[in-house]
Amino acid sequence: ETRDGPIWAATESYTCEIKSPKKESKLKGLKSFIAYQVIPSFSNIQVSRRYKHFDWLHKMLKEKFICIPVPPLPDKAIAGRYEDDFINERMKQLQYWMDRMVRHPVISHCDTFNHFLTCTDEKKWKVGKRKAEKDEFVGFKFFYTLDTPRQPLDVRDVESKMETFQKFVKGMDDNVKNLISVFHDNRKRHTGPFKKEFSRIGGAFKEAATTFNMDIGSYSRDLTAAIDYTGDTYNQIGEMYSKQPEKDIDPMHDMLYEYKGILGCFQMF
Amino acid sequence: ETRDGPIWAATESYTCEIKSPKKESKLKGLKSFIAYQVIPSFSNIQVSRRYKHFDWLHKMLKEKFICIPVPPLPDKAIAGRYEDDFINERMKQLQYWMDRMVRHPVISHCDTFNHFLTCTDEKKWKVGKRKAEKDEFVGFKFFYTLDTPRQPLDVRDVESKMETFQKFVKGMDDNVKNLISVFHDNRKRHTGPFKKEFSRIGGAFKEAATTFNMDIGSYSRDLTAAIDYTGDTYNQIGEMYSKQPEKDIDPMHDMLYEYKGILGCFQMF
Repeated sequence: ETRDGPIWAATESYTCEIKSPKKESKLKGLKSFIAYQVIPSFSNIQVSRRYKHFDWLHKMLKEKFICIPVPPLPDKAIAGRYEDDFINERMKQLQYWMDRMVRHPVISHCDTFNHFLTCTDEKKWKVGKRKAEKDEFVGFKFFYTLDTPRQPLDVRDVESKMETFQKFVKGMDDNVKNLISVFHDNRKRHTGPFKKEFSRIGGAFKEAATTFNMDIGSYSRDLTAAIDYTGDTYNQIGEMYSKQPEKDIDPMHDMLYEYKGILGCFQMF
Repeated sequence: ETRDGPIWAATESYTCEIKSPKKESKLKGLKSFIAYQVIPSFSNIQVSRRYKHFDWLHKMLKEKFICIPVPPLPDKAIAGRYEDDFINERMKQLQYWMDRMVRHPVISHCDTFNHFLTCTDEKKWKVGKRKAEKDEFVGFKFFYTLDTPRQPLDVRDVESKMETFQKFVKGMDDNVKNLISVFHDNRKRHTGPFKKEFSRIGGAFKEAATTFNMDIGSYSRDLTAAIDYTGDTYNQIGEMYSKQPEKDIDPMHDMLYEYKGILGCFQMF
């Protein structure tokens, strides 16, 4: 309990790096998959995990901690899942997710999460998996594992706080969806009409330079070159417009996507 | 004759200022009009001229000097010709025109032009007007007033130069029309879709700030203010897009319009 409301007790913090995606196979090459190397800072021992392991972990955490918003994993791949661009993009998104998970004082120290980060033995992995799946204290039962304060909370106070919070979540949900849509459109504008607009100006100057070039007098050479250069510059401005979203809109979009997933966790209340 | 081809003999140069437009009337107020004060630097005596006088002068010069491109006057007014914005805009355009005229070594020293710049007497003005209108050496006859070189020019050389020049004029005519259209569209983009795009982003941030404002914890006040400020900034960017054309596209457009008029003078060849 702090001035700003109750918070989880602080726990020791660590980080976890995800790197070196490798294509591996099993069943004598019949099945192939991408394995990512996961290295928690407290052990520095790397474990190899596939997307489906992340997916399993995510499912377990969501079931167990219904009162903790677990952000969404990156989407399942539909096509092109062995392409480098896709693998690197997914790794980046898994890293985002992991960064957020290890910062949570409860999740980052729970058994299932620890098992995922440290188990290197195939047999023990399966045992731990089964144990996690049989965990009784999932969903609302998780609350049995918490120490409650002796003094019960004031119901009216809780209800009023819940109401404000629900309004906030609803408002933010609308805001975030709107921002995603606005930035999505803005991305299209930058790579489409904005770029085209400046390319058109560039093209018009380049053509004017071609005409000026008919005049071969020495006095006009610099002017013609300047007009041509102006055309190139406008074309470059067009290119800059089309490249800009990678630098600002895309990261913003990724962050909003994650935030939308976190907000989605509150729908059950 | 110079290294770059023949040029007009240099003459003494001067400037001419157009200012203080005044609404005046005649026929006891039945007819009203705007008179501009025209002040040539060689005399510093101001004469009062209406648009219709400029128009007359323009017509005289075009008829007399068919071999000299006389740029167009601003368009005739259709509506709102007594509005301040219109009057100031027209004065600016008349000044452009005058600046170009006084720089021409032949036009700036011809009788008709001099009459326009200096005559303050109503009676003398009419006499000079009639004289100019009766000038015999107009159109192709103007060439009778020129001293020709003793050695005739090489016909093949002249023809080849004329051909290149015609191609150049045709090319420039297309270029200038294209540039005018491109800048015209660009102006519309800036005041329309570009502005709207940034206002949309601004609006989305402002809404998000409103939602964040539900959270009244002291720790979030700065963040909410920052999001709100971001919204304002995007709105301002939108405003800047819509104001930009006045600073670059409009002057460029005016210049291209003048250039288009000058190119139009060559259509008769």
